[in-house]
Amino acid sequence: MTSREPAIVLLSGGMDSAVAAALARSQGFALYALSFRYGQRHVREIEAARRVAQSLQVEKHLILEIPLGQIGGSALLQPAAEVSRTPSGAADHGGAADLSRAHPVPQDRTDSEISAGIPATYVPARNTIFLAYALAWAEVIPARHIFLGVNARDYSGYPDCRPEFVAAFEQLANLATKAGVEGEKITLHAPLIHLRKAEIVRKGIELGVEFSLTHSCYDPAPDGRACGRCDSCSLRRKGFREAGVPDPILYLG
Amino acid sequence: MTSREPAIVLLSGGMDSAVAAALARSQGFALYALSFRYGQRHVREIEAARRVAQSLQVEKHLILEIPLGQIGGSALLQPAAEVSRTPSGAADHGGAADLSRAHPVPQDRTDSEISAGIPATYVPARNTIFLAYALAWAEVIPARHIFLGVNARDYSGYPDCRPEFVAAFEQLANLATKAGVEGEKITLHAPLIHLRKAEIVRKGIELGVEFSLTHSCYDPAPDGRACGRCDSCSLRRKGFREAGVPDPILYLG
Repeated sequence: MTSREPAIVLLSGGMDSAVAAALARSQGFALYALSFRYGQRHVREIEAARRVAQSLQVEKHLILEIPLGQIGGSALLQPAAEVSRTPSGAADHGGAADLSRAHPVPQDRTDSEISAGIPATYVPARNTIFLAYALAWAEVIPARHIFLGVNARDYSGYPDCRPEFVAAFEQLANLATKAGVEGEKITLHAPLIHLRKAEIVRKGIELGVEFSLTHSCYDPAPDGRACGRCDSCSLRRKGFREAGVPDPILYLG
Repeated sequence: MTSREPAIVLLSGGMDSAVAAALARSQGFALYALSFRYGQRHVREIEAARRVAQSLQVEKHLILEIPLGQIGGSALLQPAAEVSRTPSGAADHGGAADLSRAHPVPQDRTDSEISAGIPATYVPARNTIFLAYALAWAEVIPARHIFLGVNARDYSGYPDCRPEFVAAFEQLANLATKAGVEGEKITLHAPLIHLRKAEIVRKGIELGVEFSLTHSCYDPAPDGRACGRCDSCSLRRKGFREAGVPDPILYLG
């Protein structure tokens, strides 16, 4: 179908993964998009992922239903739980540890809009699970490149968004697989990992990403509007504001 | 319920994971068994996993249904494909690479009974995916120990059964999770990794493992009897033979 080199792109429906995928495309890769229904409250993001995949003209979009809900352990998976909101965010974190003890939080993350510590919306081992499936699919396609939109600057403080996590998974990938054993290196690309949210917005605009198709909110209204207050909305709004670009999606308030 | 320290044990229903779980129990851990329906042809192993879990008096047995079948790439997932059988095994391997080029195959693996290279029954990234779920569950319980029954001597040549794979996953686990960030080390135990199959049999008998409850065959008959000829049966029979112990399960021939 195409002579371009294939790459798997993890597509959540959010703005970061859309920009990461657009970057992969701009580098000449043929895109194989991978999304997950994992019992998330904001399953609306899957519809966004479909729209983004279509707009990026991916070769294939695989949507896997995975049983994270049976494991639990996150506010994102529990319909009754309150997702972290600012300004009351900190109080929602319960026993969550202060991530800053283990690795310094960048100064620009201590914005009062962004909650401190590992939030209640952290989903245990989520990125490890997502990447494990990406790795399986990479072996089958076969693809030697996996793109993900994680970001370690303007982020929610999830441990599995850090550069050292990405590096450790790449190392694992090359030991875990037939491709790795055969000496065909599998590369993980996290092109946004050191960017500020505003830089991600600018990069997306440069690449023609249709941000109107993306969905970021953890707790959208029934009509689809973003709450504007959860961690994810706060980070997104801050990014657009600092980039000096209007955010094309609708907010409740 | 118990004051013993919790450990997750990956339980496939086969003999190795039963022995690994029995070892964990003998070391005083409270067992949380984890099994997967992943579209395997030999789904009968899930029934075996249930029986083994019961006989080991686990605290909980979580059976997750995961969509490996949608990704494909293995004879174990394809009802129509022929699983590797000896002596014609080598011919089934198609484009599979010779694993021995990348790491030396132990002399005792070159037995004519065991097929060379990475077999058609290899399931892409399977152990990475299994361990990723184990890690998620470990965060929720919380448990700091994960046991798995992988074996790098009398094994089928899967890359994700090697000590370097286990070490890389442990490193990842401690970067990927809240527990790791908080400095609570997560330990992967692969107590059988350097044992011969016969030693695993003896260890199991010493620990009172009921091998009659386990299931190893990739291609069982409708009545549940093991084929006796697939890689997994060949390895098992060799182990019992060398241990000088009768295998209590029934074989077709």
